[in-house]
Amino acid sequence: MSMAPKKMILIVCDGLSDRPVKELAMKTPLQAARKPAMDALARNGVSGTMDVIGPGIVPGSDTAHLALFGYDPHKVYTGRGPIEAVGVGLEMRKGDVAFRCNFATVDRSMKVTDRRAGRIRSGTSELAKAISGIRIDGVTALFREGSEHRGALVLRGQGLDHRVSDVDPHRESKILDSKPLVPEARKTADALNEYVRKAASILAKHPVNEDRIRKGLPPANIVLPRGAGTINALEPLSERYGINCAAVAGVSLVKGICRMVGMTVPDVAGATGGVDTDYNAKARAALRLMNTNDFVFINVKAGDIAGHDGDFRLKVRVVESIDMMLELILKDLKEDVVVALTCDHSTPVSVREHSADPVPIAICGGGARIDGVKEFDEVSAASGALGRLRGMDLLPTLLGVADRAKKFGA
Amino acid sequence: MSMAPKKMILIVCDGLSDRPVKELAMKTPLQAARKPAMDALARNGVSGTMDVIGPGIVPGSDTAHLALFGYDPHKVYTGRGPIEAVGVGLEMRKGDVAFRCNFATVDRSMKVTDRRAGRIRSGTSELAKAISGIRIDGVTALFREGSEHRGALVLRGQGLDHRVSDVDPHRESKILDSKPLVPEARKTADALNEYVRKAASILAKHPVNEDRIRKGLPPANIVLPRGAGTINALEPLSERYGINCAAVAGVSLVKGICRMVGMTVPDVAGATGGVDTDYNAKARAALRLMNTNDFVFINVKAGDIAGHDGDFRLKVRVVESIDMMLELILKDLKEDVVVALTCDHSTPVSVREHSADPVPIAICGGGARIDGVKEFDEVSAASGALGRLRGMDLLPTLLGVADRAKKFGA
Repeated sequence: MSMAPKKMILIVCDGLSDRPVKELAMKTPLQAARKPAMDALARNGVSGTMDVIGPGIVPGSDTAHLALFGYDPHKVYTGRGPIEAVGVGLEMRKGDVAFRCNFATVDRSMKVTDRRAGRIRSGTSELAKAISGIRIDGVTALFREGSEHRGALVLRGQGLDHRVSDVDPHRESKILDSKPLVPEARKTADALNEYVRKAASILAKHPVNEDRIRKGLPPANIVLPRGAGTINALEPLSERYGINCAAVAGVSLVKGICRMVGMTVPDVAGATGGVDTDYNAKARAALRLMNTNDFVFINVKAGDIAGHDGDFRLKVRVVESIDMMLELILKDLKEDVVVALTCDHSTPVSVREHSADPVPIAICGGGARIDGVKEFDEVSAASGALGRLRGMDLLPTLLGVADRAKKFGA
Repeated sequence: MSMAPKKMILIVCDGLSDRPVKELAMKTPLQAARKPAMDALARNGVSGTMDVIGPGIVPGSDTAHLALFGYDPHKVYTGRGPIEAVGVGLEMRKGDVAFRCNFATVDRSMKVTDRRAGRIRSGTSELAKAISGIRIDGVTALFREGSEHRGALVLRGQGLDHRVSDVDPHRESKILDSKPLVPEARKTADALNEYVRKAASILAKHPVNEDRIRKGLPPANIVLPRGAGTINALEPLSERYGINCAAVAGVSLVKGICRMVGMTVPDVAGATGGVDTDYNAKARAALRLMNTNDFVFINVKAGDIAGHDGDFRLKVRVVESIDMMLELILKDLKEDVVVALTCDHSTPVSVREHSADPVPIAICGGGARIDGVKEFDEVSAASGALGRLRGMDLLPTLLGVADRAKKFGA
């Protein structure tokens, strides 16, 4: 290729895409907000809309990011367990079976009385340490806490199989025995049930829980595994496309996906994955990572949180905060870089959940064309020259615009 | 999902989509007609165009409707026979082989002299009864008349195979012997050939034909099977998406498809499937069905007929009639309903046949976005925020806008 390859930045505004909001005179938060940097990006580049998985499919944050990185989530995905595990920092190896878990409260009859142990906020790190490393019949159980009451469990050993049912009853009733869904998974179900019992006996006597009981708080005296899965090894982006990749992200789930595809994911002080995240710190971290990487990915979670909370005012403010972060990044780029701005899914404030509505996308820099779109929002973007893309087409598109795509044929 | 799921109406204007018409100053019938309700739908919602099967593929009404209901016609479809059979009200069971048939006229040498028996209009019900139920070598042949000279044949028995050639010569020449296209289909071809001979001997002596001969009309003295196929069991929409579905349709082929996907298809007095159809009756039926169903589908055939007739004036009138029907429906909806308006294919008056031209689509209500499109026609719709869809994406898209789509991932 005679054109020098460009570096690439992909900024994913988690759940920022929305629907018309009555209180905003039927504008979306993106349409209602002041966002000069986003609009400049659209004005100087090419826009479109994107079905992150496919039309009518409501993406999870996990499947969405896999698709945005060019992997088919229908092929990669075997339950949420592995992704949560990687997210909390547990290493996953081939053959491991992973589970999402809640710390929960059970009574003496093993009936769940609080699926989130009073949304326990402190002490889970100690509790997790106490129940990690247990060995059962040749299987090692590794446990790591996540945010609040969340955690992940990895079973490691010979002959494990992820096709087992949940221990989590998903409601306030007696905990379930995990059952093998295929005969080969008998060993895994047995090890899992034994682990839950052993962990419960350790948790019951743990000082963190004794303290909680004294304070009248529900003890985190059981873990409830669900969403068993194994990881299908993903060819790292570096091997697939010959690019060094790094990510700036606050939430563990997104961090986990980034690590799965071979990105460097440094911890960024102040990048919390909340609405209180330090946007400047994220911008500075991204700019720093640009020095040593070909592709830098940034996820900002705050829009999704505003969507889940149904808070349209907060969502407008989030747009404006991300816009400032984008301005900082654009201003300090030292070379011609391909910059893409999009969302992993819509989280409309009227729905308070992810929705299947397509998301806007804008790309500028490198070989990006310049169309007539002047604003970055769900409707303006739809008239752009990119048309309507699928999420899995995004990274190849960026590589093309960055003069990094390989010729197919002669 | 915290948003209450919405009900859905899909109105398919069969063949209404068209090309520029010279006599209409290069406008399409949709562009030339007065259609305030359709335009209001576009103005208050989101528009796009749709390749019902795929770019450059001319849809049949059968394959088109399968795609619009979310089924891949390339996978479901094994010849038109089964769909015609279901359309005329013959039950299809697993292992059955079905054929479309014409009542036709042959001379003594079995040469076809009229492939449509003078477009016979009366008496076919009696003729069909006389040749239905014949048993040949363990195979039962069921025959039912369709409209005019049309009918359907179902062979039922052990070891049948649909891979046989047509008896219908498709032109005025000697009838063909059905041949097995694979060795396993020998029994089916033999039974089919024997059936055609037995039916011919019964038809030759039937009073309906004696009467036709007396009147100088060509007798319907043979049936010409073609389009052999079996049915691939379709998972009903109710199971696939958890929705109760009903259809308002006049033509048997469309009714057949609707029944195949598990829709309730009541007979609506006055809904003829012709240009004389009672639009008000269709609107009232649809509104009534909305009380007990999550998804109501309406097919209006008249536009297709005007297209096949090459009658642009009639087509403009059909647009205006459908517009009145739409107005009645929109006016009497008691709640927020997702309403989608589209076509199953184009039938340009200049072509007098189905064409591969994409069709317009507009969706309003529920979570539908609002773009800048102000009119419902082939060109205006193309600038809408939906972009260019495939037919198979339509129902998932409607389910998404109606907050009925399931999340894939976390």
